[in-house]
Amino acid sequence: MTTALQTGDQTSDIDADMMALGQRARAAARQLALVTTESKNAALGAMAEALIAAMADILAANARDVAAGEKRGLSSAFIDRLKLDDDRVRAMAEGIRAIAALPDPVGSVMAEWERPNGLKIARVRVPLGVIGIIYESRPNVTADAGALCLKSGNAVILRGGSDSYHSSRAIVAALHRGLSQVGLPQEAIQMVPTTDRAAVGLMLSGLGGNIDVIVPRGGKGLVGRVEAEARVPVFSHLEGICHVYVDAAADTEMARAVTLNAKMRRPGICGAAETLLLDRQGLDRHGPAVIGALLEAGCEVRGDEAVQALDARVKPASEEDWSLEYLDAIISARVVDGVAGAIAHIERYGSHHTESIITEDDSVAKRFLDEVDSAIVLHNASTQFADGGEFGMGAEIGIATGKMHARGPVGLEQLTSFKYQVRGNGQVRPK
Amino acid sequence: MTTALQTGDQTSDIDADMMALGQRARAAARQLALVTTESKNAALGAMAEALIAAMADILAANARDVAAGEKRGLSSAFIDRLKLDDDRVRAMAEGIRAIAALPDPVGSVMAEWERPNGLKIARVRVPLGVIGIIYESRPNVTADAGALCLKSGNAVILRGGSDSYHSSRAIVAALHRGLSQVGLPQEAIQMVPTTDRAAVGLMLSGLGGNIDVIVPRGGKGLVGRVEAEARVPVFSHLEGICHVYVDAAADTEMARAVTLNAKMRRPGICGAAETLLLDRQGLDRHGPAVIGALLEAGCEVRGDEAVQALDARVKPASEEDWSLEYLDAIISARVVDGVAGAIAHIERYGSHHTESIITEDDSVAKRFLDEVDSAIVLHNASTQFADGGEFGMGAEIGIATGKMHARGPVGLEQLTSFKYQVRGNGQVRPK
Repeated sequence: MTTALQTGDQTSDIDADMMALGQRARAAARQLALVTTESKNAALGAMAEALIAAMADILAANARDVAAGEKRGLSSAFIDRLKLDDDRVRAMAEGIRAIAALPDPVGSVMAEWERPNGLKIARVRVPLGVIGIIYESRPNVTADAGALCLKSGNAVILRGGSDSYHSSRAIVAALHRGLSQVGLPQEAIQMVPTTDRAAVGLMLSGLGGNIDVIVPRGGKGLVGRVEAEARVPVFSHLEGICHVYVDAAADTEMARAVTLNAKMRRPGICGAAETLLLDRQGLDRHGPAVIGALLEAGCEVRGDEAVQALDARVKPASEEDWSLEYLDAIISARVVDGVAGAIAHIERYGSHHTESIITEDDSVAKRFLDEVDSAIVLHNASTQFADGGEFGMGAEIGIATGKMHARGPVGLEQLTSFKYQVRGNGQVRPK
Repeated sequence: MTTALQTGDQTSDIDADMMALGQRARAAARQLALVTTESKNAALGAMAEALIAAMADILAANARDVAAGEKRGLSSAFIDRLKLDDDRVRAMAEGIRAIAALPDPVGSVMAEWERPNGLKIARVRVPLGVIGIIYESRPNVTADAGALCLKSGNAVILRGGSDSYHSSRAIVAALHRGLSQVGLPQEAIQMVPTTDRAAVGLMLSGLGGNIDVIVPRGGKGLVGRVEAEARVPVFSHLEGICHVYVDAAADTEMARAVTLNAKMRRPGICGAAETLLLDRQGLDRHGPAVIGALLEAGCEVRGDEAVQALDARVKPASEEDWSLEYLDAIISARVVDGVAGAIAHIERYGSHHTESIITEDDSVAKRFLDEVDSAIVLHNASTQFADGGEFGMGAEIGIATGKMHARGPVGLEQLTSFKYQVRGNGQVRPK
């Protein structure tokens, strides 16, 4: 571990160390691409057991991180995300076992067809290669990401926050014991062995072609930096400014229940609703029920004038509110003119993450689902379903709002690429 | 059109012009995403007709480019790629009609499933958005790329070589007339209105988030620059160092015919074989027939010592030869130890494009197809099948060797992304 202040020599040491780490990851990725599902699952099982066996070590390392964090005056919310206990370590082990139980995407045939000349063409899933994960304080990302990358046949380079450094190191040590038990290379899961920030910059540069994609996990500051500086593809969402649009043709009770859930079930997740759009035509019918339910549940509502007129407890919204991801028990609310108005608002202020329409009119719903340019568009369901587990994809490594390669929940399949395998019996191309 | 030498003011004009062009492309892309298949096909038909109707203008513009090129002493091969005639313009129009006849990927359901809570989830294809094409002297790329992007619902920004500037401008003018006839925005297909190289740099920066992917079409110099400097995703292959491996268990006649076709059918395409790998165990049986056929066909063979020993006409290969893409009637040839040796050679020297194994042993073939990390791997077939048309995908915009999003031939489907459309009846997420 090096200090934050680097001399020229130390910096070039980090350069060389990181490049070597990238090369080891690439070599491990080549091996992993050919490992059987059985071996990978055996390794995952051994990793889960090793985590439980290392409980004391992990909790001791975590206590060291927590003490340091408290000394530095980190917020109680931060300390809560950082802190491990018996149950949380067990949950990590269970998470790894659940990933073992998922189908292995590698080697699956995505499509196959035969050409008139007899060539048989198959599109077959292969791993992406080396995944870089850059995350903040949650030590459980170490185990989750390590397991997802292993199951999808990828090597992973983990760079966790400096605040959880010792916890992550103890977790990785346990994962390594699991890998070794079944003869898989420890280099399949590598942790950046320094908290120096220069290491992040080097990862963003791709370590000489040895990182294929980077997944940032954390707040807007981290994700924004990764998106702006990465020289390799990134699977990420900067923010989730998710909308619920209550159409005139909505069922009022459904609108109430879905909006309440979309905002208040867990206000701090990326799929939580941040803005409520109310159709002017249905405002009198749906507005009081929906706004009233939010207020009763303790949600602050910031509305335009028409929404303020519905309830004295509604606070005025400013122009800025339409672009805010509160991640808290606050929602902005405004009146729009029908589905066209909702689509235009979302296009202007949204983050292409997840939006929902509540309506009994299927043709209006179809227009919303077709025209809203977001990773996930829902009809008559809560935005809080924006989650790989809820989609039936198993664990996810994150949610992507880009359109390249992965979009929406990034699960095992999204961590793969493909190749074409073509089988012939001597075909040559004419002319 | 501006000159190559820019003053500060002119450069900032280009900046502003290109940013405005990007914004127009984004606006057009939003419209195009919602256009019906029928409208797009009608536009393609009108574009094909407009090309034929503009024959005289296009040939006159092309004559101007050719005259300027000859004056500057461009090679005859270059002039040949640049030069248009009646037949070549008709072929462009036919190419556009063929793209109209392909299935529209947009809106197709890639997968759908229902969750235990009744949510119906569908993964639906949507356009990528705005595609940037940077190409060299072939004016036909203007029409092909314009048509492929339109059919896949994407807006396109075309930046052709300065040598074909007037030809491309005349072609784009015809395409615009076709678009207008059916009421589609001309901004769907925009050409960079300058030959200034600064415009390429601006495209590589993504025009403020208004280019989603760049496809370079041209030589290694162009592709290398785009790959190194682009700040947005790139679909490309730097080179096609394609291998044919003749296993001991090959059928000699098949090995002869496939190798000859893989190299000599068209030696200058990216799927042409550049290196022949001969299994040491089968060298005496297959070597003389395969090497002899290449030499008889006028191919220069550069071999290692064992291959030189087969025929006096074989020239010595240097270490450098294993990394060369000749794009000519030249092949390097060496002896390897079985399929493992072939895989190791390809891993070390290959370009992840296309490789073929010739063998009657299916288990050896399986190992080659599984372990060789290339976009296309073939068993008993010529590498010259590396082509979207030969794959049954219709026209292609290029071949990609990266693993993100597109790999192998980049056809209409590869120019799309997807979204999740989720239909419920009031579902809220529990807990």
